[in-house]
Amino acid sequence: MSADPTIPARENPPRHIRLTSHAGGYGALPIRWAAATAAERGPVVGTTTNRSHRNVIGTHSGSYSVYRALAVASGALSASHKADLTNTSPTDIIGPYPQWSEPGRIVAMDPWGATIADVFGTELAAGYDIRPTIAVTQAHVILPEVIEALQSGRLKADGKYLTAGGAAMVTKVAVEPVWFLPEVAKRFNCSETDLRRVLFEETGGMYPELVTRSDLEVFLPPIGGLTAYIFGKPRDLANPEIELTARVHDECNGSDVFGSDICTCRPYLTHAIEECIQGAQRGGVGLVSYFRKEGRALGEVTKFLVYNARKRQVGGDTADQYFNRTECVAGVQDMRFQELMPDVLNWLGIRKIHRLVSMSNMKYDAITAAGIEVVERVNIPEHMIPADAQVEMDAKMAAGYFTPGAVPTAEELKKAKGRGLDA
Amino acid sequence: MSADPTIPARENPPRHIRLTSHAGGYGALPIRWAAATAAERGPVVGTTTNRSHRNVIGTHSGSYSVYRALAVASGALSASHKADLTNTSPTDIIGPYPQWSEPGRIVAMDPWGATIADVFGTELAAGYDIRPTIAVTQAHVILPEVIEALQSGRLKADGKYLTAGGAAMVTKVAVEPVWFLPEVAKRFNCSETDLRRVLFEETGGMYPELVTRSDLEVFLPPIGGLTAYIFGKPRDLANPEIELTARVHDECNGSDVFGSDICTCRPYLTHAIEECIQGAQRGGVGLVSYFRKEGRALGEVTKFLVYNARKRQVGGDTADQYFNRTECVAGVQDMRFQELMPDVLNWLGIRKIHRLVSMSNMKYDAITAAGIEVVERVNIPEHMIPADAQVEMDAKMAAGYFTPGAVPTAEELKKAKGRGLDA
Repeated sequence: MSADPTIPARENPPRHIRLTSHAGGYGALPIRWAAATAAERGPVVGTTTNRSHRNVIGTHSGSYSVYRALAVASGALSASHKADLTNTSPTDIIGPYPQWSEPGRIVAMDPWGATIADVFGTELAAGYDIRPTIAVTQAHVILPEVIEALQSGRLKADGKYLTAGGAAMVTKVAVEPVWFLPEVAKRFNCSETDLRRVLFEETGGMYPELVTRSDLEVFLPPIGGLTAYIFGKPRDLANPEIELTARVHDECNGSDVFGSDICTCRPYLTHAIEECIQGAQRGGVGLVSYFRKEGRALGEVTKFLVYNARKRQVGGDTADQYFNRTECVAGVQDMRFQELMPDVLNWLGIRKIHRLVSMSNMKYDAITAAGIEVVERVNIPEHMIPADAQVEMDAKMAAGYFTPGAVPTAEELKKAKGRGLDA
Repeated sequence: MSADPTIPARENPPRHIRLTSHAGGYGALPIRWAAATAAERGPVVGTTTNRSHRNVIGTHSGSYSVYRALAVASGALSASHKADLTNTSPTDIIGPYPQWSEPGRIVAMDPWGATIADVFGTELAAGYDIRPTIAVTQAHVILPEVIEALQSGRLKADGKYLTAGGAAMVTKVAVEPVWFLPEVAKRFNCSETDLRRVLFEETGGMYPELVTRSDLEVFLPPIGGLTAYIFGKPRDLANPEIELTARVHDECNGSDVFGSDICTCRPYLTHAIEECIQGAQRGGVGLVSYFRKEGRALGEVTKFLVYNARKRQVGGDTADQYFNRTECVAGVQDMRFQELMPDVLNWLGIRKIHRLVSMSNMKYDAITAAGIEVVERVNIPEHMIPADAQVEMDAKMAAGYFTPGAVPTAEELKKAKGRGLDA
C-alpha cells in the first residue's frame, strides 16, 4: 500500500513505510517478529499519544506506566510529551547477532530495542513515537564485598577492570519485556489462545485486547525487566573462544539489599561478581543478569507469609518441608519460569558459558535448551552460606540443584536447621 | 438482604453478611473505606477464582499476577488454588490505630490487610477467597557496612538489636498497594473521573473497569509495593514520646544492590540503618521504609538513557543540567509522587518522627502534610558521598533539598563534576 493522501501530512509516512490496518489502527506498522533486519521487522509502537499508531497490547516502562498516569492526572506531565532522545544512544554496540533472527530464539525482548534511533530513523521522522525498550550505559560499581576481597588479596586491582578503590568498571543494560505471544506460548507448551485467555483472567481482566485482538501479537507486560552487568568487553560475550563467567540472578530484595540471612541470594551474587572480575582480568568476560522476580516471582507478601509458616510448623524449619510450605501458600513451589530467561543471553550473542555461577537445575536446563553450551557449573563456597540459609541449600540440593558434594540424606533433611521466630 | 437460597450452599454466606450487587457481582461484599472496624469496612476481595465475589479492579500480588498467569498457562498451577494460610499470620501486632479510620489518612494500602484471617474469619468460612495484602515477619539482616561500623567502633553489639556478628534484628513488613480511588484522586488534586480515565489511557488501556465501573472504588494496581524494616519494638512507633529515627527510601537497584557511584542511594540507606540501630539502642525505635519506585518511578531504561544524556552533553555532567536531562527524556523531573508515601507511616501509628534521615523536601512536605511532626532532619555525612554523585547532591540542594550547609552557587552548579563516559 502507498501512503494515504486523505490523512494529515504529519501522520502521513513516506511511501516505503507500509501502511496497514492489520496490526493495529489505521497507520499502524506491521511487526514481523524475528525478521532478518530491523526494516523488515518494523518498530514496536506502544505509544499512548497516537492510538492509531499502536501495534502492541500494553505500553512502555512496564509497571511504571501507572506512575506516568499519576503524573498526567496531577498535571505534572503532558499526555502528549515526546521523549527527546538526544545523546541517549547505547555506549556500546550490541549485535546484531544471528540469534536475533533465528526463529524462537528471542521471544520476550525486542532485539532492536536499544538502537531505535538508528534503525527506525525514517519512521521516527514520519511521526511514529517509538521508544527504546533497552538502554546501555557504563558505570563504576563499588561493592563492600569486593573491597573486602581486595583487602584480603582474593582480588587484585588492575586499574582497568577493578580500581584500587574497589570500583569495578561495567557496561550495564536495562531491558524491558516485549513478548511475542505466539512464541511465548510455545515456550510454555500451551496454545496462544490459552495463553491469552489465562493472562486476561488471572490478572483480573487486564488488557481485554489479549482476547479480543488476536491480530496484535506483541504484548508489553507491566512487569519488571532485567539488568545485565558486563565485566569486560560486551562483544567478547559472543565469542565462544573467550572465557565467559556468568550468573543469572533472580531478585531478592531482603537479601540483595538488606542482607537477610535466611537465604544465599546476596552472597551468591557477590561471589559471582568476584568471579566475573577475575574472569575479565584473565582475558575473559563476565556477565551478571539480574531479573526482577522478587520472591520467586510470587512477590514479597507471599514470601514473608511462607517464612512464617516455615518457622512455626511442627518440627521447626526443616529442608524436607521447604518447598511444601511455599506450595501450600502459593500453589506452586516456584513461579520464576526460567523459560524466558535465556533470551538476553542469545541477544548478547552468547553461544557458550564456560563458568555458570549457579546451582539451579532450572536455570541450567533453560540455558542449554536455548542452544547455549555450559562447560562448568560453579557453586557457592560453603563459608559464604549463612547458618539460617542451610535449610534452603539442603532442600535445593535434594531437589536436584547442582552440587559437587554429597546430596543430603532424608534423615538430614528432617533436622530443624533454621532459626525459630523470636530467636 | 438475606442469603439467597437459589445459589449453591458453598457460595451462600451466612445471614449477617450483607449481600449486595452494588460493589461487584452478585455476592460481592461492600467496601466502606476508612470505617471504624474491619467488620464495617468489609474485606478486599480480588480473587480470580469466583468472579462474582470480586469487589475491586485488578488482583493481588501486583505485577506478579502476570507470572501467576504463566503458572496456570503452563499447567503448573490450578486456577482454583486456594491459599493455605496456616501459620502465616503476623509475628507482631500492628494497630489498629486511630489513623486507620481518620478520613483520607490511609488511601493506598489496606490497614486490615495483615490480619484478614482474624478479622474476616466469618467471610473466609463462608467461602470468600480473601488474601493478605500485608505480611509481617522477623529477620536478621547483615550488611557489610554495619559490620564495618562495628569494627570501627561507630556501632556496638548488644545482643539484642545488634549481634557481635553484625546481624541487626528487625521486624519487616511487606505491603501491596490497595488504592481507594476517590481519595487517591484527592491527593493528586484531580477528580476521580479524570484519575480513572488517565489511569486507563496512559497504561494503554489496562483495566477498562477503571472507566466503566465507577461502583468499584478500590484498585489493586500492578505495581511494586513497599517493605518496612523496624528496628526495635513495632508498637513503639506509635508512641510520640519514644524517639523515632526514620528513613523513607526509594528503590535504586544500581546503587542499592550493585553500588554504582553515580548516586548516594545505598550510602544513604546504610547510613539510615546505622542511625536506626543506634536509635533503638538508646531506647528509641528505627524505621526504614523501602518503596519500589526504581529510577524515580521512571524505570531503569529511562534512567540509563538519562545517564548517557548527562555524560555526553556539551559541558559535561553538571548540576545545573541535572534535572533538565531527566525532563527532556521523561517529560518530568521525577515521577515518584510522595503523596501516597506517608500512608504506611500512619498505618504504623506514627505521630512524630524525631530524626528523619532524608534531605528530600518532597518527602518532608508529604510527611508533614499527612499530619506527622518532623523534629529534626538528618543529612548524609559528606564522606559518604561518592565523587561521581556530587552532581546529584549539588543539583538537589539547589532545588530545595534540605542541607545544614551552604547551597551551591550558580557558578558552582555549572562545573562538570561528573565523570565522562569511558573514564
